[in-house]
Amino acid sequence: MKGAQALLETLQVSGVDTCFMNPGTSEMHFVASLDAVPAVRPVLALFEGVVTGAADGYGRMADRPAATLLHLGPGLANGLANLHNARRAKSPVVNIVGDHATYHKAWDAPLESDIESLARPMSGWYRWSASPSAIARDAAEAIAASFGPPPQVATLVVPADVSWLEAEDSTVPSTTPEVVRRAGRRAVVDDDVIASVAAVLRGGEPAGLLLGTSALREPGLLAASRISEHVGAKLLAESFPGRLERGAGLPIVERLAYLAEFAMAQMAGLRHLILVDARSPVSAFAYPGRPSDLVPDGCEVHELAGEHDDAVGALAALADLLGAPANGYRLAVAARPELPTGALTPASAVAAIGALLPENAIVSDEAITAGIYLPAATEGAPRHDLLSLTGNAIGQGLPLSAGAAVACPGRPVLALEADGSAMYTIQALWTQAREGLNVTNVIFDNGSYAILNIELARVGAEAGGPIARSMLEIGRPGIDFVALSEGMGVPATRAMTAEEFTKALRGAFEEDGPHLIQAVLPRGGL
Amino acid sequence: MKGAQALLETLQVSGVDTCFMNPGTSEMHFVASLDAVPAVRPVLALFEGVVTGAADGYGRMADRPAATLLHLGPGLANGLANLHNARRAKSPVVNIVGDHATYHKAWDAPLESDIESLARPMSGWYRWSASPSAIARDAAEAIAASFGPPPQVATLVVPADVSWLEAEDSTVPSTTPEVVRRAGRRAVVDDDVIASVAAVLRGGEPAGLLLGTSALREPGLLAASRISEHVGAKLLAESFPGRLERGAGLPIVERLAYLAEFAMAQMAGLRHLILVDARSPVSAFAYPGRPSDLVPDGCEVHELAGEHDDAVGALAALADLLGAPANGYRLAVAARPELPTGALTPASAVAAIGALLPENAIVSDEAITAGIYLPAATEGAPRHDLLSLTGNAIGQGLPLSAGAAVACPGRPVLALEADGSAMYTIQALWTQAREGLNVTNVIFDNGSYAILNIELARVGAEAGGPIARSMLEIGRPGIDFVALSEGMGVPATRAMTAEEFTKALRGAFEEDGPHLIQAVLPRGGL
Repeated sequence: MKGAQALLETLQVSGVDTCFMNPGTSEMHFVASLDAVPAVRPVLALFEGVVTGAADGYGRMADRPAATLLHLGPGLANGLANLHNARRAKSPVVNIVGDHATYHKAWDAPLESDIESLARPMSGWYRWSASPSAIARDAAEAIAASFGPPPQVATLVVPADVSWLEAEDSTVPSTTPEVVRRAGRRAVVDDDVIASVAAVLRGGEPAGLLLGTSALREPGLLAASRISEHVGAKLLAESFPGRLERGAGLPIVERLAYLAEFAMAQMAGLRHLILVDARSPVSAFAYPGRPSDLVPDGCEVHELAGEHDDAVGALAALADLLGAPANGYRLAVAARPELPTGALTPASAVAAIGALLPENAIVSDEAITAGIYLPAATEGAPRHDLLSLTGNAIGQGLPLSAGAAVACPGRPVLALEADGSAMYTIQALWTQAREGLNVTNVIFDNGSYAILNIELARVGAEAGGPIARSMLEIGRPGIDFVALSEGMGVPATRAMTAEEFTKALRGAFEEDGPHLIQAVLPRGGL
Repeated sequence: MKGAQALLETLQVSGVDTCFMNPGTSEMHFVASLDAVPAVRPVLALFEGVVTGAADGYGRMADRPAATLLHLGPGLANGLANLHNARRAKSPVVNIVGDHATYHKAWDAPLESDIESLARPMSGWYRWSASPSAIARDAAEAIAASFGPPPQVATLVVPADVSWLEAEDSTVPSTTPEVVRRAGRRAVVDDDVIASVAAVLRGGEPAGLLLGTSALREPGLLAASRISEHVGAKLLAESFPGRLERGAGLPIVERLAYLAEFAMAQMAGLRHLILVDARSPVSAFAYPGRPSDLVPDGCEVHELAGEHDDAVGALAALADLLGAPANGYRLAVAARPELPTGALTPASAVAAIGALLPENAIVSDEAITAGIYLPAATEGAPRHDLLSLTGNAIGQGLPLSAGAAVACPGRPVLALEADGSAMYTIQALWTQAREGLNVTNVIFDNGSYAILNIELARVGAEAGGPIARSMLEIGRPGIDFVALSEGMGVPATRAMTAEEFTKALRGAFEEDGPHLIQAVLPRGGL
């Protein structure tokens, strides 16, 4: 069989059953082979940033990779920002990039570029597949690599002739390859490490647990909450989790704030910070005269589990060693804000969301400043997954939501978007419509890159005159998101008041398929 | 003064008076300095692919660079595809990328990535500026580098603290730096080279001149036409010129076709091919059993002028040496197609364009299959500049048109867009509206990546079943470009017939500011 089909069959037997794509000529053999391997579902996007963001959302929710299919260096380049977010999310992605035929590369045809140089910064694993008989093995290793630990972006470059030439059939697996079966296993944390952290916590000095990636699902959260309750340690989560399970019936964990001074306030007084699959906290940006390292003076940092380790097992063992009662966690109680009335503001909008969030929702938070009150408003809402802007590269949320909806067809997805961020990858709405995905898109329209108004002051720059401020202002002309949404096949509503927003939100949650609500907020943000 | 202001002042005194941007926190000091250097005009875009495409369009039309301002690695990544096109166009661009503060990079904050690895493939020149007192010199060298020869993308990375710390005032130039004044000078071609090409052409064997970048403006075209007329050589242009001057009163030059077999037919029988700032022709893609090299068997390739050389001077000297009469060129005569009636098709649409194209227009051609009849339909139209999809990375045209309109405020710009290509960087419409740019955007809506229907057959793939074909089909759901356009502030019309298209086109040309016409063509393309 052709290399392209060998690749697709390897995906299939390895459980990679979804491929987000925007193909071109060099990928035509892959596309032509789709009908022969119908168990792999292709999902078309109109821009590669949608492809990669969707693959990230899929990976975060499915805990196994989707594939992508991208067109040479420029197609990859268009997808890199969301691969950056996927990398920071530790999301598994099998990132397939078509290339010119092996012998054609030397001719420097118009689309030729250095794909490896482009791919490496966002890829934990990279390979250029050199022959059709190697493609199945290369694909299996890419899939295995994507599982990590930690899960990562594995980029497999497939030259056109590797797709179109015949692979030796003996190279194509008929069941899950061994390398894939073995993939993703985490190392058990040494008893010594657990004992030394236990000694720190028993010492009674103010301590905090900082939880990251794999510790932010229910099992890790429960164990961490047992520890926290038993020894009085503060429970913190990294600022931008890839996926955080939260809501009523789950432990409450306070995310470190994005703004450094608030994060430092959250950690003030701590003498010990225990990292659990989390990195020591740093400021998102540098500011004149302020530190990059956010660990308070006099606070010692300890690592219970790194990104390759079984953090959940380590937390459970630590809780047991400390003698924390098996059910000694503290859970958020069910509680919702009242339905808001009157002006539509960031606060009233998230109150409506807290009041109406459906059971088992997936919430993508790219609301930036408009989402600042979201955590409190949804703490007691029904259990949900929160997906955050892991790599701080905006344009993630609409694609991510599409991918999450493909991964979890039975669950409602809520995409909370800042207007500026939404415009980066607005084409995702078309894929939502085409696939009939159950996504409620809320666009918080304040006509501004509002976060930058804050940052302009914070970097210590003089506030800037009218020219500077006009560069942060996107309300001239105003963007009609209802028109954009309907233009791509997603029904849409504009809400000017809390009541209108509540009505629109309820309607969107009640009806299957994608919807968009343009939530018109006070101009300029907070 | 601060480094950011030193950078802006260096841009100003070097004649770089336009900066397309989408800044973030690390660029806030640059933004805050804009009011202090008002001679540099900032132009905001909602996505970095618009920023870089606009800078490319500006560079092609102004023959001097605009600056960009991009936000770290992911912001750069979003702009890379159009920098790829700029690189292929040999367009001058000063590509400024903000970075974390020098001391902050080691902390691997969320937006940290390997900017150099991302930038190198699309940059002819690269530098990471290390101190505020070096920034003015670094900027001057970036500007100089952008002029080439050949003109190129010069990427200057500016860490946040290099922007916010004080530069020594003595480092900031008060007039155009010497390195900029000297920039862009081309080498005079040796008499020996000219004589040897003359000998070839005098030999009387079938010969062709293949003209590229710098040879495709009026002076080069006139000299080349003299030669062509005098010795009977065929006059060809590269397939994807950055900028080609054409229309009534200018020599007719036949562009090499995109599809290899057509290009080979154009060169069939040639015994000599003379390259004039052009590369030896290669196939855009490899196809099973077909050559990458398109030079006919038995045809010898000679280079009159390379990309660093004064190609225009060499052509004039060659024409003189051959004894071609000074006015012995052949010019296109003014002639327009008749206004079409009836069905709106690729042929009738370009006939309307040929019939109505205003004087001195700038035409961006990203119409892909729908534009196949454009060259013939506009050969005798009033003189215009044609900007093509140089790097074959789609998503160029709408941003390019915005940049061209900024560079040439007195000239009408016509953006011819395929529906699929338009959706890559549709956000460019907002910048067109915000800046009141005089761009007529025509979206050729055939509901398809029609070129890929052709390529699917051409790569030798079995035609593919319904799943494969659905991946090339973008008419489900249909895209309402009128809604998208109006949603971003650009007035729009839908045309279903040749008469409606003609009326809309005339209206758009007659009224200042941006317009969009959704030209509804038969489904599926050609």
